[in-house]
Amino acid sequence: MNQQMEIIGIGNELLIGKTLNTNASWLAKRATTFGIKVKRITVVGDDVNEIASIVDEALERKPKFIVTTGGLGPTFDDKTLEGIAKALNCKLEVDEKALRMVREKYQTYYREGKMERVELTPARIKMARLPEKAEPLPNSVGTAPGVIINVGGTLLIALPGVPAEMEAIFEESVAPLLEKEAGELTFFETSIYADGIMESALAPLVDKTMHDNPHVYIKSHPKGEERKPHIEIHFSTTAKSSKTAKNRLGKAIIQLSELVQKDGGKIKSKKKK
Amino acid sequence: MNQQMEIIGIGNELLIGKTLNTNASWLAKRATTFGIKVKRITVVGDDVNEIASIVDEALERKPKFIVTTGGLGPTFDDKTLEGIAKALNCKLEVDEKALRMVREKYQTYYREGKMERVELTPARIKMARLPEKAEPLPNSVGTAPGVIINVGGTLLIALPGVPAEMEAIFEESVAPLLEKEAGELTFFETSIYADGIMESALAPLVDKTMHDNPHVYIKSHPKGEERKPHIEIHFSTTAKSSKTAKNRLGKAIIQLSELVQKDGGKIKSKKKK
Repeated sequence: MNQQMEIIGIGNELLIGKTLNTNASWLAKRATTFGIKVKRITVVGDDVNEIASIVDEALERKPKFIVTTGGLGPTFDDKTLEGIAKALNCKLEVDEKALRMVREKYQTYYREGKMERVELTPARIKMARLPEKAEPLPNSVGTAPGVIINVGGTLLIALPGVPAEMEAIFEESVAPLLEKEAGELTFFETSIYADGIMESALAPLVDKTMHDNPHVYIKSHPKGEERKPHIEIHFSTTAKSSKTAKNRLGKAIIQLSELVQKDGGKIKSKKKK
Repeated sequence: MNQQMEIIGIGNELLIGKTLNTNASWLAKRATTFGIKVKRITVVGDDVNEIASIVDEALERKPKFIVTTGGLGPTFDDKTLEGIAKALNCKLEVDEKALRMVREKYQTYYREGKMERVELTPARIKMARLPEKAEPLPNSVGTAPGVIINVGGTLLIALPGVPAEMEAIFEESVAPLLEKEAGELTFFETSIYADGIMESALAPLVDKTMHDNPHVYIKSHPKGEERKPHIEIHFSTTAKSSKTAKNRLGKAIIQLSELVQKDGGKIKSKKKK
């Protein structure tokens, strides 16, 4: 069985519709290519109790990975680590390794002439205050380190909300962990497009094809307008080799295409403009 | 106190990073403008048990509104209503009003020459099988009706995943309910942009300004790259009138702008290109 992941986005800007949760989508895509199954994505605001609750609930479901994004910065409303500490019932303490990372960042900024002096203000030290037993993860793009904690076998990983920083820490420190845990299965996917058939007419054809191809998951996504049905049909499978995956997907695509054409629909391999 | 909402996105495509959850963001923005507070956004896959769990958990937190998107269509993996019925421990039954809506849609398609005959196949009847006590909401853009159920005071509302259909049902049937429940408070927001100051140096200035302006929430969003700090500073408040809101936001913006400029930063009212 493949390992599972939950993703938690933290930030009021996500709850007022100001910011699209592109971080969750990016992480989900990356995790999926490693063969990790994302089971749930959640968003809560910048509130210690909300963060503590959501982390606690996710831990109870015992996924292999929980990845949070946002709330690691220097401002008062960056509350992720406080929320995690509350969920784990432990204290926040200045971590020497994290403090060294933060200090080195400001020394670099100083050398580049961006600061008049290197000063570790409370707001800056805050980024190095980690829950007990946490390890900092270096941030090659920004200042706030990422954080990883092993909680009874679940790897709880906190990443910054700035996409470039989140992605850099993920690629450098998290992707190798996912690769190790992923097992032998990889996720493969492809889409075809059907014109001239309504989704309700397509539905039984998809059912039949999935029944005959038990390892392939097929999902239809209507893309056209009411008067001109245009449906994306997405095929996916997890397999040990790309050869197996291609065989499976190819067989299912041929069967469904024939069924659609028999019903008067047209199949295309590209999306209609 | 303002009413609360939770948003639940349903669909494997969201969990594999294939589709961005723009529906949640759109709903969050619309609800926020009505003065409704979105407390949590969640995404689960096309799985009856997952859907039942998430609906059950949301109901336990007793928000005024729970809005789900996705999983109302005619295909086998459209499982939202089955999941809701499981959470409510009730049956799915063909609803006469919903069936009429679905039939009328197909009659229209027939008259437009898009179907050879009007036939209510099992896949089509499925869209009219609602949990007991549910009411269908007309879908002016597509086929599957929306659904609303009053569960002990919480309005549980299921909308389709196709954005145009979701938005149409929301505007026609859901927005009026939100307006009624919203109370007297409306959400107001605006942003300014700071250059030449690091977020860690801005943090204590934001703290001071928020302390002096207790009704204004201020959040910084770093937008620049490491070498050139460029920070969006987002101000928001909920107030009974736009006059009160503008006064509050204006006062906070002036105070923070002065503090930033005193520290050598520059304030702009527009985002840097």
